[in-house]
Amino acid sequence: MAQDLLNALRHVLPSDAVFTDEEHREAYGHDETEDLKHPPDVVVRPRTTEEVAAVLRICHALDVPVTPIGGRTGLSGGALCVQGGVGLALDRMDRIVTIDEGNLQVVVEPGVITQVLQEAVAAKGLYYPPDPSSRGSCTIGGNLAENAGGPRALKYGVTRDFVLNLEVVLADGTVMWTGANTLKNATGYDLTRLIVGSEGTLAVITKAVLKLVPMPRETRLMLVPFNNAEDACTAVSATFRAGVTPSAMEFIERDAIVWTMRHTDGLPAQLSTTPGAYLLIEVDGDHGEALMRDCETILGVMEAHGCGEVLFAESPSEKAALWHMRRSVPVSVKAHSVYKEEDTVVPRFALPRLLAGVKAIGARHGFSSVCYGHAGDGNLHVNIIKGDLSDDFWEHELPGAIREIFELTVSLGGTLSGEHGIGLVQRPYMDIAFNTAQLELMRGLKRLFDPKGILNPGKVLP
Amino acid sequence: MAQDLLNALRHVLPSDAVFTDEEHREAYGHDETEDLKHPPDVVVRPRTTEEVAAVLRICHALDVPVTPIGGRTGLSGGALCVQGGVGLALDRMDRIVTIDEGNLQVVVEPGVITQVLQEAVAAKGLYYPPDPSSRGSCTIGGNLAENAGGPRALKYGVTRDFVLNLEVVLADGTVMWTGANTLKNATGYDLTRLIVGSEGTLAVITKAVLKLVPMPRETRLMLVPFNNAEDACTAVSATFRAGVTPSAMEFIERDAIVWTMRHTDGLPAQLSTTPGAYLLIEVDGDHGEALMRDCETILGVMEAHGCGEVLFAESPSEKAALWHMRRSVPVSVKAHSVYKEEDTVVPRFALPRLLAGVKAIGARHGFSSVCYGHAGDGNLHVNIIKGDLSDDFWEHELPGAIREIFELTVSLGGTLSGEHGIGLVQRPYMDIAFNTAQLELMRGLKRLFDPKGILNPGKVLP
Repeated sequence: MAQDLLNALRHVLPSDAVFTDEEHREAYGHDETEDLKHPPDVVVRPRTTEEVAAVLRICHALDVPVTPIGGRTGLSGGALCVQGGVGLALDRMDRIVTIDEGNLQVVVEPGVITQVLQEAVAAKGLYYPPDPSSRGSCTIGGNLAENAGGPRALKYGVTRDFVLNLEVVLADGTVMWTGANTLKNATGYDLTRLIVGSEGTLAVITKAVLKLVPMPRETRLMLVPFNNAEDACTAVSATFRAGVTPSAMEFIERDAIVWTMRHTDGLPAQLSTTPGAYLLIEVDGDHGEALMRDCETILGVMEAHGCGEVLFAESPSEKAALWHMRRSVPVSVKAHSVYKEEDTVVPRFALPRLLAGVKAIGARHGFSSVCYGHAGDGNLHVNIIKGDLSDDFWEHELPGAIREIFELTVSLGGTLSGEHGIGLVQRPYMDIAFNTAQLELMRGLKRLFDPKGILNPGKVLP
Repeated sequence: MAQDLLNALRHVLPSDAVFTDEEHREAYGHDETEDLKHPPDVVVRPRTTEEVAAVLRICHALDVPVTPIGGRTGLSGGALCVQGGVGLALDRMDRIVTIDEGNLQVVVEPGVITQVLQEAVAAKGLYYPPDPSSRGSCTIGGNLAENAGGPRALKYGVTRDFVLNLEVVLADGTVMWTGANTLKNATGYDLTRLIVGSEGTLAVITKAVLKLVPMPRETRLMLVPFNNAEDACTAVSATFRAGVTPSAMEFIERDAIVWTMRHTDGLPAQLSTTPGAYLLIEVDGDHGEALMRDCETILGVMEAHGCGEVLFAESPSEKAALWHMRRSVPVSVKAHSVYKEEDTVVPRFALPRLLAGVKAIGARHGFSSVCYGHAGDGNLHVNIIKGDLSDDFWEHELPGAIREIFELTVSLGGTLSGEHGIGLVQRPYMDIAFNTAQLELMRGLKRLFDPKGILNPGKVLP
C-alpha cells in the first residue's frame, strides 16, 4: 500500500471515507461468487460524484487499479479486487434523488438497494420490474454493471431496458452523462447501453435515470409440477406460442426443491419433492378476468405437456410463500454444498436440449448438477455440486466439463451469461462465445475508455 | 471516379451489381430529407454478405468513402453520399431468412421492407411492433441504422429493443456477429446496441435477428379533439399516470389535419379542421372487456383535460382510415410546402412546454411550424414551413432559430432526435446535446471501428 496513494486519497476524501483496516478490507474483499476472496489494499466509501471523480483522478495519475463495489451479491466475481488497489465502494451513495411521477422516471444513486427502490416507487403506484433474487441486498449500480435480469425479464426486459441515462465517471476522472432522459433517443452513439453490462471496466456509474411503468393491479401465480424436467422446459416455449406472455416463468429442478425444503422455513404446505421439476408461472395485469383467461390458456398448454396437479396461490401470503421458495433456492443450494454456478442462456425453445445436454456432460464427467432459473427467457442457472468430489477433480477436470457446457450453449444459439456477467470466473470461456476479431474489438473499447487499464482490471476480457 | 476502384468492384461483383450511369446515381443520390441530392460516384447492389465484405475491403484499401443506403426514406440525410464514393445499396439483400416460431424470432437481411416483415410474421400470429410512418418503403437495415421508432414505441419500445443479434461487416471487410440470439445477454460489451443507431458510420449491417411478440388479438382506437393543443399534450402524461399504457398516442396539430385533408383521400368523414389538435389513441391486448375498461379510464382523463367529442373507430375499415390519416401527415406537409423537420424528444411531461416554446420561437423569428408526432413518448416532429419566407431567411436566420428549439429541448431533459437520427442535417447541433468530452468519446468510437473514416463520412459527429 503506497503511502503517496493513501495521502492523496485522504487529501480529497473525509477521514471517515478511507479504510485500510483488516476488517474493512475483508468485508469488501468478497462477493457471493463461490468462496473467493480478493481484498483491496484500501477501501474508499465516497458520498458524492465529485469524491468518486477525485478518487479516479488519483488512481489514474498513480496507475492504481480501482474496482467498483456494489452490494457484493455478484455471482461472477465482478467486484473482486483481484489486483488489490482501491476498492471503490458505492454503498454510501444510496439516495433516491427524485421520483418523477409526471414522466414515470426515477433518478437514483448507484448504492440504492433494488428492493428499496421497488418499494419506494410502489408506494406511488409505480413499478420497477428488474428483480434479481438478491434484490434485498443488491444495488442498482451492480444491477446496471452486470445488466441484471431476474424473473420478470421475459415480459418487461432486463436492467438495460429500463435505463434512460447515466452519469458516469471515466477512468481519468471526467464526469459525463451518457444520453438524455427520454424514452426514445437517436442522437449519437448509444453510450448508455455500452456502459450497462460493462461490469465496471469502462466507467463508474454515479447516477442513473430509470424508466418506471404503472404498477399492474393484479397477479395470478401458479406452481406446476412435472414428472419430467424436459417436459417442463418444452411447455415453456409452447406457452408463448399460445399467445400468452407471462410476467414470470421460473423452472426449478427437483433437487433444488429438496434442498430448499431442508434449508428454508415458511414454504407452502403443498410443496412436494416427488415431481422432477416445477414451473412457477405468474401473469400480471389490470383486469382480473383477463388474467384468469390467460391462466386457462396456460393451464391448457401445461396439461398438454403432461403436468401434474397445479397449485394456484390464492392469497397474498400464499403468493409470497411461493416467491419466497423460489428466491431461497440459490441460498439453499449454497448451504447444501460448495458449488459452481453457470449462468447459461439460450433461445427458449432450445432449453430442453440444454438441460439434457448438461445432464449428459455431468454423467460423462461424474458430477451432479442442480438447474433452475428463468425458463421464460431461456436463462438456466446450472449449479455444479462439489459434494464429495475431490479437490483435484474440482480444480483440474471440471473446467474442461464447464467448457463443454458453454460450447453446447453457444452451439444452441446461446451465450455464456444471461444476467450474472462474465466477471472473473467466466472469463476463461470468452473464446467460446467470441472469436479473435470480436474480442479484439472489445479490447479496443476497453483501451478507448481506460487506456491505462486501471478500471476493474482482470475482468471480462481474457 | 477512379478506374482502379471500378475495376476492383467489377472484379468481385457480378456485372449487374455495379452502376455508374446517371439514372442509378440520381436514384440512389437522395432520401426523403428536404430536397437534398448527393449522388454516389458508383452504386453497388450486392446480394450477399460476402459481396458486401468484398466491397468494403476494396474501399478500405483504396480509401474510398462508402455510404450504406436502405429504403431512402430517411429524414436526417443519413444515406446521402456527401463525399461521393460508393453508394452501398442493400436493397437486393431482402430475404426473410427464417421465422422461428419456437423462439419468436426472425432472421432478416437488411433490405427487407418493414411492412413486408410485419405482414409475414402477422400471418403466423406474431407481431413486430416498430413501425415508422414510411413502413411501406423503409427497410429493416435503415430502421436499425437510425434506431427507428414509430407510434407503438411507447408500449413496445423502439427498434433497438427488438434486436437480439446482428451480422455486420466492419470497415476493413471483417464479418462478425455482435451478440447471441438470446433475450438476455450479459456476456461482454454490448456491440449490438452500439451498432444500432450508429447510422452506418461504424459498420454495415448484413443480417439481423429480431425479437417478435404474440400478436395482440384486439385493438381499440379513438380520435380525441382538443381546442387547445397544449391541453392535448398535458393529457398525454396524465394517461400514463392513471395506470394505462396505450399502444399508440399520437398528437396532430390543426394545420397538419388541414393539409392532410387537402392532400389525402379516404379520410374519416367525421374529421374536422375546427379543433386545435387531435390525439389518436390506441390500446391493444387479448381481451375485449379489459380494453374497453382501459378506454373508459382514458376517456376520463381526456374529459378532465377538456377534450371535445371523441370518435371511436368501430370497424377495421374505420381504424384503417384513421391510421391512414396519421400516416399521410408527413407526406401532406411535404406536399404543402418546402419545410425542415426537427425530430425533438423530451420527457413526456415536458411536451406542453416544448410545444409552447417552439411556437414562441417561431413567433419571434417569424416562421410558422406544424407539429405532430408520438406524444406518448415525448417525440414531437416540428415541421418548419418555408411558405413564402425568403431564401435568405431560410439559409441564414433559420439555423439560429432551430438552435433555439434544440436548446429548449435539451433544457427540458430531451435531446435532438428521437427516431430520425442525426445524419447530415442535425449534425451542426450536436454540440447542444453533448459537450467536448462526450463528443471526443464518440469520435474515439468512430476511430476504433473505422480508423480510415471511410464509412458514411460527414455524418453524425460534427
